[in-house]
Amino acid sequence: MIISATFLDEITHDIPSQNWGRTEWSREFKLMRAAGIDTVVQIRVGHRRWMSFDSKVLKKEQNCHQPPVDLVAMFLELAGENNMAYYFGTYDSGQHWHEGRADREIAINKPLVEEVWEHYGKYPAFKGWYLSHEVSRNVNGIVDILATMGGHCKKISNNLPVLISPYIAGKKEVSAFESQISREEGVSLNEHEAEWDKILSGIKGQVDQIAFQDGHVDFHELPAFLELNRRLAERHGLQSWSNTETFDRDMPIKFLPIAWPKLLLKLQAARAAGIEKVITFEFPHFLSPHSCYPQAHGLFERYCEHFGIRAQV
Amino acid sequence: MIISATFLDEITHDIPSQNWGRTEWSREFKLMRAAGIDTVVQIRVGHRRWMSFDSKVLKKEQNCHQPPVDLVAMFLELAGENNMAYYFGTYDSGQHWHEGRADREIAINKPLVEEVWEHYGKYPAFKGWYLSHEVSRNVNGIVDILATMGGHCKKISNNLPVLISPYIAGKKEVSAFESQISREEGVSLNEHEAEWDKILSGIKGQVDQIAFQDGHVDFHELPAFLELNRRLAERHGLQSWSNTETFDRDMPIKFLPIAWPKLLLKLQAARAAGIEKVITFEFPHFLSPHSCYPQAHGLFERYCEHFGIRAQV
Amino acid sequence: MIISATFLDEITHDIPSQNWGRTEWSREFKLMRAAGIDTVVQIRVGHRRWMSFDSKVLKKEQNCHQPPVDLVAMFLELAGENNMAYYFGTYDSGQHWHEGRADREIAINKPLVEEVWEHYGKYPAFKGWYLSHEVSRNVNGIVDILATMGGHCKKISNNLPVLISPYIAGKKEVSAFESQISREEGVSLNEHEAEWDKILSGIKGQVDQIAFQDGHVDFHELPAFLELNRRLAERHGLQSWSNTETFDRDMPIKFLPIAWPKLLLKLQAARAAGIEKVITFEFPHFLSPHSCYPQAHGLFERYCEHFGIRAQV
Repeated sequence: MIISATFLDEITHDIPSQNWGRTEWSREFKLMRAAGIDTVVQIRVGHRRWMSFDSKVLKKEQNCHQPPVDLVAMFLELAGENNMAYYFGTYDSGQHWHEGRADREIAINKPLVEEVWEHYGKYPAFKGWYLSHEVSRNVNGIVDILATMGGHCKKISNNLPVLISPYIAGKKEVSAFESQISREEGVSLNEHEAEWDKILSGIKGQVDQIAFQDGHVDFHELPAFLELNRRLAERHGLQSWSNTETFDRDMPIKFLPIAWPKLLLKLQAARAAGIEKVITFEFPHFLSPHSCYPQAHGLFERYCEHFGIRAQV
Repeated sequence: MIISATFLDEITHDIPSQNWGRTEWSREFKLMRAAGIDTVVQIRVGHRRWMSFDSKVLKKEQNCHQPPVDLVAMFLELAGENNMAYYFGTYDSGQHWHEGRADREIAINKPLVEEVWEHYGKYPAFKGWYLSHEVSRNVNGIVDILATMGGHCKKISNNLPVLISPYIAGKKEVSAFESQISREEGVSLNEHEAEWDKILSGIKGQVDQIAFQDGHVDFHELPAFLELNRRLAERHGLQSWSNTETFDRDMPIKFLPIAWPKLLLKLQAARAAGIEKVITFEFPHFLSPHSCYPQAHGLFERYCEHFGIRAQV
Repeated sequence: MIISATFLDEITHDIPSQNWGRTEWSREFKLMRAAGIDTVVQIRVGHRRWMSFDSKVLKKEQNCHQPPVDLVAMFLELAGENNMAYYFGTYDSGQHWHEGRADREIAINKPLVEEVWEHYGKYPAFKGWYLSHEVSRNVNGIVDILATMGGHCKKISNNLPVLISPYIAGKKEVSAFESQISREEGVSLNEHEAEWDKILSGIKGQVDQIAFQDGHVDFHELPAFLELNRRLAERHGLQSWSNTETFDRDMPIKFLPIAWPKLLLKLQAARAAGIEKVITFEFPHFLSPHSCYPQAHGLFERYCEHFGIRAQV
């Protein structure tokens, strides 16, 4: 069970930028394709006042800063050149929906995805949508956001698939801006099932793929949660992916590449649970031989050795 | 508006050392000069018990540890070889002035700068003084420290220019040793103006250049603060520089190189505000192609591309 | 006084893995040997649910995860090839002994070291034991654990030496998972002496070598503590080593390589105190020219320059 999809963490939220230009990204897409990645998901087109293309909607609605390059176009072109699918990640204000205004989050994103589809829908690599609003619980109007935006994205794009990547309210659900790495109590399997049954019922038909993040529970708890997540997805007609995180949540430095034994264990657990596809957060920072973190170079070596992947770096 | 000056963060306070020797520093000075840097500012000659040359004063007054090399001499020689100006940064006890004893801070630094001028004043690259005591408010006897030390430095050195680099008490004024990256309330423009009017009145004629750090306010707040800082400087007869930080204050890892779009935005804001010169904290760690942080290599590439700088690495 | 021993931080606890395979480790052992390292100490065979060889005992007692490679065998082979001594580090549950069940910690480790001796005792490089339970005070049943396990290890292995590496309850005894780097009060020399007199009396004859970690007190306090630690060791018939840490405890990023002036100061202090041997935590991450942290490459250069070490990288 190899990793066949990756997020691209632009605009970054808690992972420092590698400051790559087109040359570095072009090299990276080739390498990713050779290593078995067929799908890239731009995690969010914008966050707070930052945006990754010159969006009229985001300038008007959120006073976003002018970006120096059009990352959406670049990612679409490189995906096309390398025969990969590109998913577009929606805008996350980092604010409105946390303050009870899910409607405002939707009111910005609806015209935004229309603007995006009008400008970029013609690119052959544009193969799906990613709803960037991440939750672990039925809070912040998340059902409204996901159902409305999922439905709208599908409607304007002739039904392209829609992906979400929520997390589990496990023991390791701790802010990246806290020094601690875990808390006393995590969600139980029963609570998680009840909560997500409700959410997934509410977004049925508007979302196609669900990739729960796999890093918020302890490693020995993961098999049961993966199995439950697969059943939840099946029950509600979704494809079950796993977001196999390639960064290490157990260390004081937040975040560096994960230890290989941990990654292997998680991939084996995903396979055992019958997960359909593995996406990672994320290849360029944490699994790439070109990463700014040399620990990732080692991780890539171990990963390729284990799975017999031959990718010319 | 390119970066034409940089701090050299020795003795480091919260940025881990790169452990460079003369070979690495020699290469770095050449590169910096080629990239447009004409001024290097050693941020502080000593901090607590650490010092960067074998100072009789600091051994006697502060029991400082014997340093393995004379960084002051090395920086002066390399600056001279590369036709750059060197500014000497004073000693920060990290203690006395925080505990109400600004007079003790002055009593150490006065004979120290005399010792320094006697030993190093003959170097042609010795072109200025940097007063290393950083504040955002009129506290800790800062007016006394800056006025007395500025005046004393000028007097003994035939009026060499004196630089300071305070910060803004903005939302991002958070200790590097807290996990959080921001706080609820930052200083208002009015409060900042009133406070700094008072401080700058008190140090008039004793300080020549002021480079406010630009990282403690949000990016959309920066233009107004830069404009105000320029006006404050003009009002009190100071040259207005900006300390355009090249590290990222928005990430859990404190600190790695900044994302290029953020740096570009800040440089454009400095230019728009009529700032006279841009210094950065600091080239070797955060903007250099030789940095221990590969994100800096990318930042240097983007920076050079944008400004058409051709510097052989 | 050069560093002639190093820990190998596998399984890692708060230092992210470099994800090295046999090729990288083989290169590293050669380099370490050339740089004067004659002893490698695997810090712990397992921690919580992670283990570094396929141990029947740890699977049965602690449900440990299956490891992808046998690190114990690999380290023993590489130590043998390079004529180095290997010390085996015991298992740390990270739990039982912190919760008042030192007996459980012992009950797991006794059959574990028997399993290990049976499987690996034949390797000529197997030259000692390291008891991985680290304390600064007489707490958590530490005397029982160290005396019982030390005695047991010696008994089954024909009296191979046993090493421990406690720390000092100094000002810098702060969890790696707190953002702060120091606290108000550290232990006094008198308290430290009284506490460790008691502990060392209790483990007399069962432990042979003691390497106090040198990073928890301020640098100017270190000479007195090193001197006291040497006397404590002598008084109880132990060899006195120093665990000269090569990472920096004074920075917000926990942890990167230490600044060279700090390392030099600590090595000079160890020599002045009459310490018999210096081990470091740890060469591969913090002092190696192959480290994922380029600050370590500089540190290695400075270290080799100073001591006239010529090791081909």
